Amino acid sequence: MPALEAVLSRVDANMDDALKRLFSLLAIPSISTDPAYAPDCLRAANLLRDDLESVGFDAAVRPTAGHPMVVARAKSGASGAPHVLFYGHYDVQPADPLDLWETEPFAPRLDTTPAGKRIVARGAADDKGQLMTFIEACRAYLAEGGLPCDVTVLLEGEEETGSPSLPAFLDANKEELRADLMLVCDTNMWNRDTPMVTAMLRGLALEEVTIRAASRDLHSGLFGGAAVNPIQVLAKIIAGLRDDKGAITLPGFYDGVAELPEDVAEQWRAIPFKPADFLGAVGLSQPAGEAGRGVLEQIWSRPACDVNGISGGYAGAGSKTVLPARASAKFSFRLVGKQDPEKVLESFRAYVRKALPPDCRAEFTRHGASPALQLPFSSEALSRARRALLAEWGKEPIIGGSGGSIPIVGDFKRLLGMDALMIGFGLDDDRIHSPNEKYEMSSFHKGARSWARVLDALAN
Amino acid sequence: MPALEAVLSRVDANMDDALKRLFSLLAIPSISTDPAYAPDCLRAANLLRDDLESVGFDAAVRPTAGHPMVVARAKSGASGAPHVLFYGHYDVQPADPLDLWETEPFAPRLDTTPAGKRIVARGAADDKGQLMTFIEACRAYLAEGGLPCDVTVLLEGEEETGSPSLPAFLDANKEELRADLMLVCDTNMWNRDTPMVTAMLRGLALEEVTIRAASRDLHSGLFGGAAVNPIQVLAKIIAGLRDDKGAITLPGFYDGVAELPEDVAEQWRAIPFKPADFLGAVGLSQPAGEAGRGVLEQIWSRPACDVNGISGGYAGAGSKTVLPARASAKFSFRLVGKQDPEKVLESFRAYVRKALPPDCRAEFTRHGASPALQLPFSSEALSRARRALLAEWGKEPIIGGSGGSIPIVGDFKRLLGMDALMIGFGLDDDRIHSPNEKYEMSSFHKGARSWARVLDALAN
Repeated sequence: MPALEAVLSRVDANMDDALKRLFSLLAIPSISTDPAYAPDCLRAANLLRDDLESVGFDAAVRPTAGHPMVVARAKSGASGAPHVLFYGHYDVQPADPLDLWETEPFAPRLDTTPAGKRIVARGAADDKGQLMTFIEACRAYLAEGGLPCDVTVLLEGEEETGSPSLPAFLDANKEELRADLMLVCDTNMWNRDTPMVTAMLRGLALEEVTIRAASRDLHSGLFGGAAVNPIQVLAKIIAGLRDDKGAITLPGFYDGVAELPEDVAEQWRAIPFKPADFLGAVGLSQPAGEAGRGVLEQIWSRPACDVNGISGGYAGAGSKTVLPARASAKFSFRLVGKQDPEKVLESFRAYVRKALPPDCRAEFTRHGASPALQLPFSSEALSRARRALLAEWGKEPIIGGSGGSIPIVGDFKRLLGMDALMIGFGLDDDRIHSPNEKYEMSSFHKGARSWARVLDALAN
Repeated sequence: MPALEAVLSRVDANMDDALKRLFSLLAIPSISTDPAYAPDCLRAANLLRDDLESVGFDAAVRPTAGHPMVVARAKSGASGAPHVLFYGHYDVQPADPLDLWETEPFAPRLDTTPAGKRIVARGAADDKGQLMTFIEACRAYLAEGGLPCDVTVLLEGEEETGSPSLPAFLDANKEELRADLMLVCDTNMWNRDTPMVTAMLRGLALEEVTIRAASRDLHSGLFGGAAVNPIQVLAKIIAGLRDDKGAITLPGFYDGVAELPEDVAEQWRAIPFKPADFLGAVGLSQPAGEAGRGVLEQIWSRPACDVNGISGGYAGAGSKTVLPARASAKFSFRLVGKQDPEKVLESFRAYVRKALPPDCRAEFTRHGASPALQLPFSSEALSRARRALLAEWGKEPIIGGSGGSIPIVGDFKRLLGMDALMIGFGLDDDRIHSPNEKYEMSSFHKGARSWARVLDALAN
């Protein structure tokens, strides 16, 4: 077993080459939601397989009904070493609106700022930069003599579209993928200097609704005042989803939502979190969700409903006096505690159908559903990870939640009974899913070092 | 002065060539709302100028701040003949959604159906086919010896975008354009066999609203539940515009809206109009506007508010967990009686501003505003036109209203004090502003004959 110090030095020495490897991956527009980019998703998978093989893994690209998985294995030299399964995803969000990018989203660049260097590209933080921190840690171990743990790496290509192929893949490959612990690198640090282990993840249910009325687009002069307008119907449906205090009105929506235990609430109150800074960083000043809840609660431990997109009628330049035949909106529900995604979607569809006036029809398209996840606050793996992160960053890590969803964690819990240790090095201002996404060079470098320390801590 | 019968025979004999001329005009994608088609608008104007010159008019293409006007003049041989100003527009609506067209929108074709032949193309009915009926009538007169009236033709290229350049053009060319009566061919027949003179036009006020919140698109997981969502804000604004009985809630909106005089109401009740047929033709069954009003009232003599388009967030394939920074909607208000468009828009903007939650801003873009117009039911010109239409169609024309707007009629009334005789040969199922727009060959042919008769009736 190599000495940890030698491995960390190797990580440091490898950094220039590591950046080149990351840039090759970022240059591939592996946008999973748009079928036009399927060949790019496959290219990204192939590149990762080749890289993992060069590190010393047995690696393969494995087909699914959608984009392929990359699965790789490497054994530790030590007998009785723990076995970890590392999860990441190589797919990215669409880059639009393109005109707001300062440089091409798939032409990665290194930007020098007063705060340090940063990597700018779609996927820099979510999740290509993050997943490479783990691979770079493994590369350093294998170059120095071997891994302290048995490691399986699973990289999927459909995380940004709700992981539709993943449950079936897990189910079909249970024995191969089962490990003692799952490691996930798709979360954030508390801030630039303070690491975080994420112990609560909100679930996610995605549903698209199309309202149809007339058999064709109508002239708003000839029919306006007599013909039903599906945009107005949809607007009323959206407006009715929340009451005056920001609570979701769907019957049964809050079933399974528990109040935070007092000890956790206490720990969160002690976190040096300033809602004004969090919201101010994106140009906002007021929490807009449920009245009477703190912002950390609103985004970590309370459910939410958002409209992610809406369309209908004419949206081009100028005006068009059309009364459209259809209107659509994409909804996302963020779930917590024991909320049942299926029951939430059922209640939502019933609400929409009930709200339809005569002559209107609703069509529903499901884009995925996964429950929330809560990890035990007092597990052995968690305390070892805390020790490792403290050593690297010189600060006790925050044990927090995340408003975002990582459906695979729930799938693994459900199908394989595995717990997950979620450690990531993203920052809140990384602009994931937005133009000019970036990943701090410090996240990339110290992230790789952190994984080297965590693997060491788990084995010793 | 040629005999009317000779002119009508000439119209009949010219029909094949008339169709070819119309097809040349329909082949030009003169979409006024999209700057990309400006050269096509100019091409359409040039083609019409050349055609009017070949008929025997003095014609010119006249620049404006937007698309140009075509102005043409021809004098009657008879002294003391009345002077009419004919208005039409050569611009058309965008053709999207393109995938719903059975054939190319700007490759006009003649379709044979059990009910007769029809011309299919964007602009076939609105307004290229209609304006050519008048030009073909003039062509026949001039070929037979001369016009019975002095005729000025004014064709504009911005009707579909609210005629932004027209008032200034009218004002600058008042003396040249003033005539005894205006003739407008941009309206419909009652049905395939029954002509109509349109005596009421709704006004139109167009306003686009953009709601902005965060300084950038956010991840709906990381911010959902705490950050304000502009789509939800916009939806609430739209939903709040109408009360439970379909009435518009804007303060002062109904100022200037009068109940129909009893005699007019009586005439309308006698019209063989079946709401179920009117709505059924476009796949609807229930009037969706103000409760307690008949459909004819709803579309002719009552105001309305519609959303013509909405956009915000991700509208592509699949899902995107974005909490968008902005959302937009295009609104149109149809106005009647003495409603003041400026006051309506003022009230609307005040309503939107008042509805904004903290951290949201609204931006307004004006796309035009014109008041409603009511023509005297008992003018001399109207009774002569009734006589002419009765002779051509063998049926007393309906004296009705139109829900659509023809802003120029109001501008002429306001700037030049001229009344307008609105006669058109479109049908309700012509699909104007929609895919597969068409114009009946019978409308085109008997429309030209009707104008020949109307010109004769006005002069004699």
